Amino acid sequence: MIDVGIIGGSGYTGGELLRLLANHPEVDVKLVTSRKLSGKPVSLVHPHLKSIYALNFEALNAKEAAERCDIIFTGVPHGTAMDWVPDLLDAGTRVIDLSSDYRLPVDVFEKTYGMKHRAPRDAIFGLPELHSEVAEAKLIGNPGCYPTGAILALAPLAHAGLVDRVVYDSKSGISGAGIEPTETSHYPNMSQNVIPYKITTHRHVPEIKQELGLLSPGIKVNFTPHVIPSVRGILTTAHVFAKEGAETTLQDREAVARIYRDFYKDAPFVRMADVVPRLGAVRGSNFCDISFEPEKGSDRIVVVSAIDNLVKGASGQAIQNMNLMAGLDQRTGLWFPGMAP
Amino acid sequence: MIDVGIIGGSGYTGGELLRLLANHPEVDVKLVTSRKLSGKPVSLVHPHLKSIYALNFEALNAKEAAERCDIIFTGVPHGTAMDWVPDLLDAGTRVIDLSSDYRLPVDVFEKTYGMKHRAPRDAIFGLPELHSEVAEAKLIGNPGCYPTGAILALAPLAHAGLVDRVVYDSKSGISGAGIEPTETSHYPNMSQNVIPYKITTHRHVPEIKQELGLLSPGIKVNFTPHVIPSVRGILTTAHVFAKEGAETTLQDREAVARIYRDFYKDAPFVRMADVVPRLGAVRGSNFCDISFEPEKGSDRIVVVSAIDNLVKGASGQAIQNMNLMAGLDQRTGLWFPGMAP
Amino acid sequence: MIDVGIIGGSGYTGGELLRLLANHPEVDVKLVTSRKLSGKPVSLVHPHLKSIYALNFEALNAKEAAERCDIIFTGVPHGTAMDWVPDLLDAGTRVIDLSSDYRLPVDVFEKTYGMKHRAPRDAIFGLPELHSEVAEAKLIGNPGCYPTGAILALAPLAHAGLVDRVVYDSKSGISGAGIEPTETSHYPNMSQNVIPYKITTHRHVPEIKQELGLLSPGIKVNFTPHVIPSVRGILTTAHVFAKEGAETTLQDREAVARIYRDFYKDAPFVRMADVVPRLGAVRGSNFCDISFEPEKGSDRIVVVSAIDNLVKGASGQAIQNMNLMAGLDQRTGLWFPGMAP
Amino acid sequence: MIDVGIIGGSGYTGGELLRLLANHPEVDVKLVTSRKLSGKPVSLVHPHLKSIYALNFEALNAKEAAERCDIIFTGVPHGTAMDWVPDLLDAGTRVIDLSSDYRLPVDVFEKTYGMKHRAPRDAIFGLPELHSEVAEAKLIGNPGCYPTGAILALAPLAHAGLVDRVVYDSKSGISGAGIEPTETSHYPNMSQNVIPYKITTHRHVPEIKQELGLLSPGIKVNFTPHVIPSVRGILTTAHVFAKEGAETTLQDREAVARIYRDFYKDAPFVRMADVVPRLGAVRGSNFCDISFEPEKGSDRIVVVSAIDNLVKGASGQAIQNMNLMAGLDQRTGLWFPGMAP
Repeated sequence: MIDVGIIGGSGYTGGELLRLLANHPEVDVKLVTSRKLSGKPVSLVHPHLKSIYALNFEALNAKEAAERCDIIFTGVPHGTAMDWVPDLLDAGTRVIDLSSDYRLPVDVFEKTYGMKHRAPRDAIFGLPELHSEVAEAKLIGNPGCYPTGAILALAPLAHAGLVDRVVYDSKSGISGAGIEPTETSHYPNMSQNVIPYKITTHRHVPEIKQELGLLSPGIKVNFTPHVIPSVRGILTTAHVFAKEGAETTLQDREAVARIYRDFYKDAPFVRMADVVPRLGAVRGSNFCDISFEPEKGSDRIVVVSAIDNLVKGASGQAIQNMNLMAGLDQRTGLWFPGMAP
Repeated sequence: MIDVGIIGGSGYTGGELLRLLANHPEVDVKLVTSRKLSGKPVSLVHPHLKSIYALNFEALNAKEAAERCDIIFTGVPHGTAMDWVPDLLDAGTRVIDLSSDYRLPVDVFEKTYGMKHRAPRDAIFGLPELHSEVAEAKLIGNPGCYPTGAILALAPLAHAGLVDRVVYDSKSGISGAGIEPTETSHYPNMSQNVIPYKITTHRHVPEIKQELGLLSPGIKVNFTPHVIPSVRGILTTAHVFAKEGAETTLQDREAVARIYRDFYKDAPFVRMADVVPRLGAVRGSNFCDISFEPEKGSDRIVVVSAIDNLVKGASGQAIQNMNLMAGLDQRTGLWFPGMAP
Repeated sequence: MIDVGIIGGSGYTGGELLRLLANHPEVDVKLVTSRKLSGKPVSLVHPHLKSIYALNFEALNAKEAAERCDIIFTGVPHGTAMDWVPDLLDAGTRVIDLSSDYRLPVDVFEKTYGMKHRAPRDAIFGLPELHSEVAEAKLIGNPGCYPTGAILALAPLAHAGLVDRVVYDSKSGISGAGIEPTETSHYPNMSQNVIPYKITTHRHVPEIKQELGLLSPGIKVNFTPHVIPSVRGILTTAHVFAKEGAETTLQDREAVARIYRDFYKDAPFVRMADVVPRLGAVRGSNFCDISFEPEKGSDRIVVVSAIDNLVKGASGQAIQNMNLMAGLDQRTGLWFPGMAP
Repeated sequence: MIDVGIIGGSGYTGGELLRLLANHPEVDVKLVTSRKLSGKPVSLVHPHLKSIYALNFEALNAKEAAERCDIIFTGVPHGTAMDWVPDLLDAGTRVIDLSSDYRLPVDVFEKTYGMKHRAPRDAIFGLPELHSEVAEAKLIGNPGCYPTGAILALAPLAHAGLVDRVVYDSKSGISGAGIEPTETSHYPNMSQNVIPYKITTHRHVPEIKQELGLLSPGIKVNFTPHVIPSVRGILTTAHVFAKEGAETTLQDREAVARIYRDFYKDAPFVRMADVVPRLGAVRGSNFCDISFEPEKGSDRIVVVSAIDNLVKGASGQAIQNMNLMAGLDQRTGLWFPGMAP
């Protein structure tokens, strides 16, 4: 059994880690921390977990937590994770960080987040479909939710060198904005609406550029996120424009299908969808569903991906990484369908 | 033209007064106050009003406001209206108060709201379908949203002396909770949910008991409110139990239809619905739609009413009262259909 | 391993059985039938099941199905199940029928559903919290979704003989109406709405009266269902009125809590909620969450229950019954939390 | 007074015409046709119109309808309008056609809709912000909902010759798909989802290309529509790429603002929004709200527009055209705010 702990477990990603780990056959959840809820049962903020977990939140420092765990998930906000990670690593645990502190090179991080990085460490970008180094990692920078859906949608075409530019138009459920009420999450504002935000400046863009750039240097990337009246899920519409000379290939459905199939032949959580992906088909699960549609007589092909932002976009992917780090089949405890309808 | 002003216009009822008054042929909106937004255009918090109103919020005291208006709507919170109303009345304006400060006798108010009433005044309960005295009033206590739907659903049967007990189960859109984000209004909490609250203790109960008690002394009333994933609208399911001896009458559809028709013959905003009322049929309008369904072989008849909580349940009803106070046809400026779909 | 089959697997309850059985450690799903989809993969109508199941729908008769299964779930419409069940039983399988054909005595069934019962058989009403006989049953009449939430909310108080009358006001997600589009399920009609229907005549009432009547002969029951803008979930608001002499007991929170605790001490799927139940806390799970609230100075106590209509209200309960029939712990394969947010 | 009639009034656009015309000071609605509902009150399918209209649906031919009207709105499906329009015109009425039969040149229409055009006539594309010829028209081809939002978002930049390519990603409420239930409009499918459809082949594309091509020959256009869980509203995200040499201008907020201000100086229904447009700010109104956001250091500027698909995207725009045809101020009867929240 792997002994795991969660630092910062009172938010949505913490609750989701607990939900997903409840039936993981090889995991024992040893501790969940929350400074402000210390001593309270986890079911107080996560009432769906009642009867399933007897755990109380604890207020622990890194060393205390590390002593009781083999692997620790850090679910604290960006800028805070860097205060935990070095001590956890030094104490000998391996760490999967769900914040953005360890996803980018220091200079890119500092520019993107407008803050000094106080504790840089070597980390692996935890997208297992692209990075088999995950298995050996001491520290994982678990990818952002948007980058997961965006990168997986495009990686095969980028890797094949077919893409000049991709214009991402992403639509996310509002749970991505967290458990605290805001003006945007206020029901009368969000209901019957769709809200573009950080239209040209979202902080997840550098992650996308970094990963696509590794696959296809010089690829042009534009990205605009929206929130939609859904709790979970990210649907990414990728408007992909062919490199000169690649138009014909991108028009050929069979060729494109083959490219995706080959690229993802060892990636059980990526499913090529028979129809356009629905959020309902991935909701609650670790799957990423993808389909594509060439525009006849044009240089455009549209690729659509769907994930659950809290699972494949956060906590599920973290557990997938954990499985690989522990030498387990990556599907362990995650091989269940989404919830539909 | 009637010169009107709105004290406290930055919330939903203020915005709705402005929306509805925009096309009122006999009204000139002279001022809208908001201490914290003074100097800002009303379209800042009410972007739907852009181009329609050139007004800025003002910070005025009661006397300054009264000087410029014939009738003033007070849209401030309960407990605050009582600080405005006496000065407004003393300055010679007539007042329609949308808070709960002037709906109940002082002793009932103080018990219900747990506070001292600092400025009691004579007021008329502004439900024009029951109170023709509205026309002469200097001060209107504009009814709560739940009481409007609940009382209108039952008044004819109560007045006919047929009812032993009514169990109200009300379902409200979340706009009734106001413009400020709360845990309940947080989209992930409200979406795909229905939330009972103040299950046996809602502060609107005394208004309902007061009005039904006038029509049918001794009638028993129970009330439980819920919020549903809707922005606007209140659907009230009234489970009505017959007085001994009244069972047969309540089973007789024609007799019941006649009772409602007679009672509401001069009430243009009450529509007896051909089918079960839909929130969509009243949304945005001042109508109250009502239908009923006797339970065969039982002492129960179920009455269902639907209103828009912000219109007939608040701002529309306030304008209906204003029309009557000004000697206009009560439909003036309010005679338009709801928005469907 | 238990070999199971699903007769009629193209609807929501069939899809949900497959979702839930996917990780049941003691079950092998041998077959799923659908006449019109025979030969097609189950993931065609249930895209969330892709990669999880390799099964195709089959067109089989009862005998063919029975030969390959120990236990069969019938998910066909009411009036159709009776054409399958006798042959399945005769062939030696045990049957859990999710239709309404085997929940009621023949005369009550015929009156309620307005049709002749062509194949009456002895069956157990499959609410395991009330009926331990489930374990020995050859044929289970799996309860309706509304009755499950309604009966569980009231059973302890009814059993204690404290209740004169209960007025149920239930609110259901629209998935209860099935996978076929209807006028009610049309998004513009259902969104931002709440729709009472079969206001005094819902066919689930006899099930509720039957079970409560066993616990408390003479208890008066009224029931009105609504659909709300939610996919899954039933929230039942039970307005409970005390028998003469029982008012004081029902006002005593501790006494009432004890009654529920005692009654459900061996019922792991019933959780007494610390706060008012949320649909989100049970969504996707087999739990039934219950809370209560006495009305001070009144003869009313309000009990609220929440279930997922497709799980505890249908497919989850069917599997719970299957576990008991097979001598397993009733939690086997069902002991996971709901999905929140 | 203008006597108007509606051919085909049982759908959403018909209901919306009636809603909007109810308070038009210069219009008398003389007739509404529906073959299948002939003799039934319009409030049967449009319950929100009860008490407002006493009209019954009629079954009339073109000549009978034309005799009683100055202007007729045709709200029948595409491919059917062409069977009405010539007779209506020949009988001397002017016609505003809400179908797609008269928006495109015959050859483009036939290719796009895969059918023969049986009755071509000269028509004006009824987007009054671009086409002042509307005032003199005998026949208006009222624009599609997507084209209205898409063209208005881009016209100023296209007209200024600054755009190389625009990639439209549009999000529409489901009312655009009509009043008949479909698999897509089924609540469990649409709720908590966002569905791309006709990803590269939507029939509105030729309208967009036609209008933008007039303003800026050679401009490249890509378009992908989605439906979102909203009843009304279209939010269009236009990813705009600068022509070579125009990058600097598109980066200059002041310059871009001036281009929009100048272009729309006589267009009262186009509002440049202070914040990103919300569907709630235009819901129920004839406004089109627009904002833009340059991407720093890039050749992209993102323009966002919001309309109500049933108002500015259909029936409201039709009335705006009618006003101009009748020599009225285009705002007559349409100058009211949207409904928010």
